[in-house]
Amino acid sequence: MDRDRILLTPGPLTTSLRTKLAMLKDWGSWDTDFNQVTAGVRSRLLDVIHGHDSHVLVPLQGSGTFSVEAAVATVVPRDGHVLVLDNGAYCKRAARLTQLMGRRATVVPHPEEGPVSPALLEHHLQSDASITHVVLIHCETGTGVLNPLPEVAAVCERHGKGLIIDAMSSFGALPIDARSTRFDALIAASGKCLEGVPGMGFVFLRKAILEGCAGHSQSLAMDLHDQHQYMEKTGQWRFTPPTHVVVALAEAIDQFVEEGGQPARLARYTDNYRTLVDGMAALGFKPFLDPAVQAPIIVTFHAPGDATYDFKRFYAAAKARGFILYPGKLTQIETFRVGCIGAIGRNEMQQAVNAVADTLREMGIASGAPAL
Amino acid sequence: MDRDRILLTPGPLTTSLRTKLAMLKDWGSWDTDFNQVTAGVRSRLLDVIHGHDSHVLVPLQGSGTFSVEAAVATVVPRDGHVLVLDNGAYCKRAARLTQLMGRRATVVPHPEEGPVSPALLEHHLQSDASITHVVLIHCETGTGVLNPLPEVAAVCERHGKGLIIDAMSSFGALPIDARSTRFDALIAASGKCLEGVPGMGFVFLRKAILEGCAGHSQSLAMDLHDQHQYMEKTGQWRFTPPTHVVVALAEAIDQFVEEGGQPARLARYTDNYRTLVDGMAALGFKPFLDPAVQAPIIVTFHAPGDATYDFKRFYAAAKARGFILYPGKLTQIETFRVGCIGAIGRNEMQQAVNAVADTLREMGIASGAPAL
Repeated sequence: MDRDRILLTPGPLTTSLRTKLAMLKDWGSWDTDFNQVTAGVRSRLLDVIHGHDSHVLVPLQGSGTFSVEAAVATVVPRDGHVLVLDNGAYCKRAARLTQLMGRRATVVPHPEEGPVSPALLEHHLQSDASITHVVLIHCETGTGVLNPLPEVAAVCERHGKGLIIDAMSSFGALPIDARSTRFDALIAASGKCLEGVPGMGFVFLRKAILEGCAGHSQSLAMDLHDQHQYMEKTGQWRFTPPTHVVVALAEAIDQFVEEGGQPARLARYTDNYRTLVDGMAALGFKPFLDPAVQAPIIVTFHAPGDATYDFKRFYAAAKARGFILYPGKLTQIETFRVGCIGAIGRNEMQQAVNAVADTLREMGIASGAPAL
Repeated sequence: MDRDRILLTPGPLTTSLRTKLAMLKDWGSWDTDFNQVTAGVRSRLLDVIHGHDSHVLVPLQGSGTFSVEAAVATVVPRDGHVLVLDNGAYCKRAARLTQLMGRRATVVPHPEEGPVSPALLEHHLQSDASITHVVLIHCETGTGVLNPLPEVAAVCERHGKGLIIDAMSSFGALPIDARSTRFDALIAASGKCLEGVPGMGFVFLRKAILEGCAGHSQSLAMDLHDQHQYMEKTGQWRFTPPTHVVVALAEAIDQFVEEGGQPARLARYTDNYRTLVDGMAALGFKPFLDPAVQAPIIVTFHAPGDATYDFKRFYAAAKARGFILYPGKLTQIETFRVGCIGAIGRNEMQQAVNAVADTLREMGIASGAPAL
């Protein structure tokens, strides 16, 4: 049957029909009606972090990575020095794009199975005064580990360093409060926990640093200072916005607010997470992370130890049953990932667990337990 | 009534309901089903320029300007020297983004009311051997003027210079043949004459130069060489693609092919154009350009000379009647623009002319004729 599959990935996610239906209309990108949609999105995103006093919100075309690159290019001066707290693939990507654009970057490696260390950050900031900015991935999607944002922010504030947070997969689900947590830039995207469709990112920039960001970016398209100035002056995007993606995000934010905002979304995702890990545990599967450091966003599971296991077959069999799983991103250990986010609830998660059980049976695998 | 307005702009455009309906489905960006959509789009775009032998097609997230910047960043070496043939706003933007990323750029100014000059290009290439690349805007959307692509390409080829063509508003409507016209990069976007929705661009890169482009880009997100390599290897986009925009483009290309491809699209747009300019002429309006240099894409009209004319009122009154016009982009002369492109035909253009007539009547303006 031609029925939509459930996307159990870190994004793009399953979105509601209501969100998708918002795309059945064409909008003039110069028109005041569309400008109002943009203004509404910007304001309501600031609501989510209680950031109206401290921050502005600058949307940007492209994927979330475009917004990460834009945030670094805009916030960090050309002679700046960025310290990247690295515990996974997205940290490494942030370091790479920083170095590629000619900014100095120091990578502080951490084990992938745990959060980054505020104490180690403290040590590095004490021993190298040239560091100007710190990059933190809030929830490292490579594994699903939750990093200690408030603690890292406190260290940065104490040392007077700028903090750039990639909150791609946490924003909207995990609490982030700009009144108590200081950051220069925080980045997320339309197609993640807000449950919009992919195609744009957005960056919260601290008002106090905004003016000083003029001229930092060597990229026209990614200059968030320029984008912000133009938007403030005209109400419009500098370059053609992805109009249908923007109106879908506006519609998704309506539903986010109606659901009860971030606390309600976190509660639903936590319930999804519990349904998933409990169900998978009953099948023998073992999560890669200690539950204490696991965000209820995306779960990395060890691959079953059974010799007949093959991810491609496993993926195809789960897909045939209506569920799209996600490959692992670890280089040393064979894993796969399952997302808990999107416009789905306990029913879908239980169905997914049942589909995995059926898949194991079909593959002749007695248990999901990893190799010893 | 809540009826969609007709967008008479250079994009976003009015798209067909069929194109928009393609967005009512969520796709996993890692899944083979979506990879097949991407592969189909890439192959069918190469069909449009007969470019399978000579070029590859690299899609990129973001607006068309992102793809222009990516093309320059990828194709031009860091010590390259770009000559920009400038006869309008989009030429100036291309020059600005080139300089901002640290590439040397020389701007050759031309009057806005005519095409750029291949003879002047010849002169510059003869007198400055340091020039490595030439940037040409095929149809300058600022005015709507058509630039002489084959002639400029011939000059570049004779001198062994790379040619980068911004074909944003011409691609799909005006003929471009990679078998007879040599270029290193040609850029267009989803939301223009292919009548998809906005949110992605794409760049044709000449196979012969592709390998040499490795390491040129200082931007990770905009590195088309990297994007191409990854896509060839995995079938996937490097970073989250705007899945709904991509499937809408695939659906729009289906309709493009069914309509009869580029010749049929040009015929419809030419008919739209004739209906518009004939109707507007009957109301006294005068196009800014000589018809001989006008592309049937977007028409710049002089503002009416009548003292009571005010663009904002004119725009609002036309909008109330169901038509979204576009402001002028000339600094010296008051103008407005009307697009001839999108999923619209003679009916819509005639209705637009009628709405402008009604608008003039409402504003008490006897004629659209400009001031002498």
